[in-house]
This record gives sequence, structure tokens and C-alpha cells, in this order.
Amino acid sequence: MKAVVCHDTHLQVTDVPTPEPGRGHLLLDVHHCGICGSDLHARVHAEEMAEAAAASGYDGFMRTSDTIVFGHEFCGEVVDHGPRTSKEIKAGTRVVAMPILRTGGAVHTTGLSPHAPGGYAEQVVVQAALAMPVPNGLPSDKAALTEPMAVGLHAVRRGQVKKGQIAVVIGCGPIGLAVISLLKASGVRTVIASDFSAGRRALAAQCGADVVVDPATDSPYAAADERGKFITAAGLFDLAIDSMSKLRALPLVPWWTVMETAEKLGALPSGPVIFECVGVPGVIDQVIASAPIASRVVVVGVCMGADSIRPAIAINKEIDLRFVLGYTPTEFREALHLMADGKVDPTPLMTGVVGLDGVADAFTALGDPERHAKILIDPRSDVVAL
Amino acid sequence: MKAVVCHDTHLQVTDVPTPEPGRGHLLLDVHHCGICGSDLHARVHAEEMAEAAAASGYDGFMRTSDTIVFGHEFCGEVVDHGPRTSKEIKAGTRVVAMPILRTGGAVHTTGLSPHAPGGYAEQVVVQAALAMPVPNGLPSDKAALTEPMAVGLHAVRRGQVKKGQIAVVIGCGPIGLAVISLLKASGVRTVIASDFSAGRRALAAQCGADVVVDPATDSPYAAADERGKFITAAGLFDLAIDSMSKLRALPLVPWWTVMETAEKLGALPSGPVIFECVGVPGVIDQVIASAPIASRVVVVGVCMGADSIRPAIAINKEIDLRFVLGYTPTEFREALHLMADGKVDPTPLMTGVVGLDGVADAFTALGDPERHAKILIDPRSDVVAL
Repeated sequence: MKAVVCHDTHLQVTDVPTPEPGRGHLLLDVHHCGICGSDLHARVHAEEMAEAAAASGYDGFMRTSDTIVFGHEFCGEVVDHGPRTSKEIKAGTRVVAMPILRTGGAVHTTGLSPHAPGGYAEQVVVQAALAMPVPNGLPSDKAALTEPMAVGLHAVRRGQVKKGQIAVVIGCGPIGLAVISLLKASGVRTVIASDFSAGRRALAAQCGADVVVDPATDSPYAAADERGKFITAAGLFDLAIDSMSKLRALPLVPWWTVMETAEKLGALPSGPVIFECVGVPGVIDQVIASAPIASRVVVVGVCMGADSIRPAIAINKEIDLRFVLGYTPTEFREALHLMADGKVDPTPLMTGVVGLDGVADAFTALGDPERHAKILIDPRSDVVAL
Repeated sequence: MKAVVCHDTHLQVTDVPTPEPGRGHLLLDVHHCGICGSDLHARVHAEEMAEAAAASGYDGFMRTSDTIVFGHEFCGEVVDHGPRTSKEIKAGTRVVAMPILRTGGAVHTTGLSPHAPGGYAEQVVVQAALAMPVPNGLPSDKAALTEPMAVGLHAVRRGQVKKGQIAVVIGCGPIGLAVISLLKASGVRTVIASDFSAGRRALAAQCGADVVVDPATDSPYAAADERGKFITAAGLFDLAIDSMSKLRALPLVPWWTVMETAEKLGALPSGPVIFECVGVPGVIDQVIASAPIASRVVVVGVCMGADSIRPAIAINKEIDLRFVLGYTPTEFREALHLMADGKVDPTPLMTGVVGLDGVADAFTALGDPERHAKILIDPRSDVVAL
């Protein structure tokens, strides 16, 4: 079969042996496969990523010298079952699958490991237990976005935006856009999005962002503050004195209700929830320096290598810095169903489709945020340039 | 009255005018006042601290060129009321007070601002609304530790240690010891404490730590893992496959209960809660690199200046990095009552008492963790060396 292989940073369309599904596996004909920022990054920085993965207990991540078939965001049709694989999902069924494969006595990340080739190919092997039929006739191109939408859903879940709390999304690449879509689908009233690119800001508005800001001229934090009227350290001191005066005025407050009373009096403030979806060095520190007191910062953008922060400022503001990765299997399933039920629309993210021969060009095209967000590969397409 | 004043990094005992309580203020005779790590730090690094405070909205923090009376952890006896101050707390009452003072149209941090002199003195002015009578005859030296104990209580609250979850405390200085005491008072079953100093480790055991580790020879994370059997990334992949196989076996699982089911099946793991109580550059990154997946890291130790972290490792592990500072007024009150009710005993922290003439020597003595944790100042004492 035809596949795009990456070796030593070079992408090339090649004939490779058709993958064989093992026990517990399904073989799919790939309909659509998304190109992810992680693929772009892994092409040139595999060593750093492999070391970070090893540090958290996974040592099967690709190395630059490996021959890799990328692709972990895909939708395809079941064409074969491995030996002793359950036939619950029948041949001909369109499915998406979490990109994790149990093979050779270990579990590997599909599309980012030499042990589990991905969806930049005519066919791909997936774990049957992690495959999910595509419901409601959701088209394959949209279904292929289940994976990035699950990343957005997971980030939003970990962000725990409360009723009335403002959300700020820094960076409107595909993941930032997914986060915006899922925030709106979750019922968050005010979503403020920020990106230097006019094209990306337009997509953010299409995904439902309520306020869209160009950080070159306006501050997304000022836009949030205008609406949230967040407290400063000095205001917090005032609040401490005033709330204690009120507490004292309450007759016979039992000790164990003091905390609840303080909460009701607003003595425990909270800032906005900020989603950092950029992932380049310096952005986390910038967010810490600009965020209101008691902000929660969800770090979704992956910054490789060392990065510098100023902990004293994070401490003075009581910042909660939540680093997030991926999703749970159930979040993956939920993301699929949110799209199939029409509650989340991935259309604004989808800016182009290419065939396998167009992948190298697409990697270049994705470098321009004005032109593209998410490019999908359709192995049956003959489009070679965008 | 006599006070220890700090000017241009030099400490000196001097006669200064007796402070005058303003509206809403009380004047106290100081019984005991703790020497805090922040005081040691502010003596030599006031500029950095002032800039970090200004970045979060408080611009009244001391500068090196100011003349300062340190001291924000104190207990004293009410001797006078300011004009129009409520007489609810009568003269002769022993009180502790949150170290915040409304004066000159602004609110300032007592003992760390030129606008609100602190407790390294015979007398100190406090905000009546933030003063709390010392209950149950709790001695003044113990009551003076309300402030650091409130810091510990606040950190433990923000840590949200769940039933059965393991807590790890890195660094057993006064704040680490306070955190250990409050973790045990909160009913946390397993507290693992780590410090390079044998003296500090002995104090940690006295505060109730269940396991005490010398990081020069043993890893506190290995000690935690031995008990918690935390999952790795590879294990998480296995879990995803196995839990989805189980979910599929369940008849007619409605979508909306899938998340709850996943939680019950253990598909959403959690690591330990780690309290970083050291506050020197490099420690946060070390904790991130060593922590199990899904650890919550509560950063209590204040690291000034820039610090380097590796976000990719934090992301791969889904670390939740919560920076904390201070306490709420109600936590301050609760810390006092926990001590007065005998639920928390600050005795292990208290390693020495000096008079005002002994403060400069005490600052030096606190540099040796084998000898000291918390030194208290008793302005009526004539002890000049420890």
C-alpha cells in the first residue's frame, strides 16, 4: 500500500507492506487523517519528545532515525479483523479509534512510534477495544477531528470553568479553536480569544468566541478584566478587613460555618480560567505575569525544552497551573458524539484536504497561520498542493 | 520604645517613637513574635520581593532603602484602642492578628512595609477587625505561631488531599513542618517528609510525618510509589484499552454515565499531592521530573527570580502546579483554634527564644537547619545569643 513515511526528518510517499492486524486489532481503510502540530514537531524534534515521554514512563516514542508513518487523527472503514478479535464491529463499519495499539507485548502510540504506523497511509491497524463506530452519518472528514476535539474537551474539563466564570484562550491554532468550540458547547458564557493572526481570529469567531483580540494592539487580560472586575492584592487586603468586620457582626457564627460564610461574602476570590494553547517558550511566564489574581491556567500548548517562569509572581497571584495532555477514552467517545449530535461543529478548523502526495506541501502550508488551521489527508484524493 | 529596625540590610536595636493606633486600630504590647524566612529574605532581597508584589497589585512592599520593623507572626496584649475603634476587644486581652493594616488611605502588610511596623518591637499596631482573642489559655509563644500554621492550613486546603491519597512534603523548614502538622490534623493517613538535615527530619517525625526520608540517599517519590503504586504512561495506555473493553461489556451504558463508570474503573488515575516547601531555584523542575503521573504539586516555598521548568514533562504527566500564598482570614482564625483546642501542636517548630538584642544573632543561627526551625522574639527577654 501507499504511505507517507518520515525518516531522518524527510517525508516521502512510498510503497510499504500492508499492515497485518494482530490479536485484538482491526484493519481500516483510511478515509481521512488529520495533520497534527505534534507531527510537524516530531519530524524535526523527535529526540526531545522521546525524552519527555520516557520521563513519564513511555519509552516507545519515535526517534529521528526511525522510519515512521505519522497520523493519529483518523476515520476509516473496517476491512479486516485480527485473529481472535471480537467481530462486534463488522467489516464495512466506519470507525474512529484512540491512537493506542497493544502490540509486541507493549502498548504504543499510533502514528508517533515505529511500533504502530499511523494514518498517513491507505490502511491503518487499530485496537478494536478503542475503536468506535461513527454515529448519525457524521462524515469521515469531520469524524477524523474526534482526536483534536477530545484534546479540547479534556482541557475544558480540567479547566473546571464555573458558572459565570470567564474563559480566555491564548492562541487560536487547531487546539485553541477546539478549546473555544468545547467551551461554548459546555455553556461557558464569555470566551475571550487571542491570536496575532487575523485569519485565526476569524476562525475563533466562527468557533463561537465572544470577544476576539489581537494581542499586538489589545490585551485579552484587560478584555477579561473589563467584564470580570478581578481583584488585586491590595483589594484582597481590603476585602480581608471588610469581610472580617461583617463576620464579627453576625451573631453567634459557629466556627465550622465561618469558611462557608467567607465564601458567600466573596472573601475567596477567583480569576478567569486561561487556556494556554501556544506552546512556545516564554508564553507561560507571560500568562503568569498578565493573569489576574487566582487565575487557573490550563497549559495545553506543548513547549519543548526548558522554559523560564517567575514563581514568586505565580505565588503572589495564587496561580493554579494545570498541565494537560490528551484525553480519557470516555472523553474521546464523548467528543465523537458531540460532533455527531451537532453540538460541536469542527468545520471552522478544516481548511484543506490533500492526497498522500500533497503531505509534504501541506507541512509547509501549515507554517502560515493566515492560510491554514487543520489540513486533512484523504488517501484517495489526488490533490498535491494547497 | 525599643525595636529592631532594618535599614539597608543592617539590623539594629533602636529607640523609636511608640506607634499610635489610628481609627480601627489596636495597640498591643508584644509578648512573642516569630522570625520568618520571609524576614531573612527581605533583609537582603527586598527589591525583588517588592517587584513581585507590585506585579500582583500591591505597591507598598518595603525597599532596601526603607527603615523597617520586621515581624508579622506575633501575639500580644491589648493596651490601647485607636479613636473610634470598637471596644469589643478589651484592654488586657491577649490577641493574635492578621498582619494587614489599613492606614493612610491604603492597606499595608505589617512587618514588611514601611507603612506598618511589625512585631520586632515592644509594641505593635494592628487592625482591630483582624485581631482575635487567644482562647483556652493558649500560651503566647504558641499563639504567635498562628501565622505560619495558617500558611500550612491554607496550603493543605489548596492541596485537596483526598481520602487515601498520599502526601509528600519536600523540605522541612518551619513551613514544611506546619504543613506536616496540618496534614495530620486533617486526617491524611500517609505523610512522607523529605529533608537533607537530620535535625529537620527529627522535627518532621515529631510533627507526625509517617515516613521520613533523607533525599541524599533515598527518594521520597520512591517511598510514595512503594505505597501508592502509581501508574506510568505505559500503564495508562494499558488501562485505556482494558477499561474500554470492560465498558463495552457493560449492557446499555448510557453515554452520560460513561464518565462516572470510567472513574469507578480507575481509568482516571491520580498521583500523590506533593508540597514543595523549599523555594530555591531548580526544585520545582526536580519535583516535576520526579513526580508520578497526575500528581498535584502545591508550591509553598517562595523562589525569587526566574526559575527553569520543562513544561513538556509536566504536560506528559498532567501535573497540577498550584502556587499558594498566605491564608484567608477564616483560615487564620481556624489555625489559632486548632492550636487552642490541642488539635495541632506547634512545639516541634519552636527551637529558641531571644530578646530584641539577640535578633541579629538569631538571623545567623537560622542559617543552620540542624540547630533551628523557628526562633521567637520575646521583647521582655534578655537572651542575646542561642
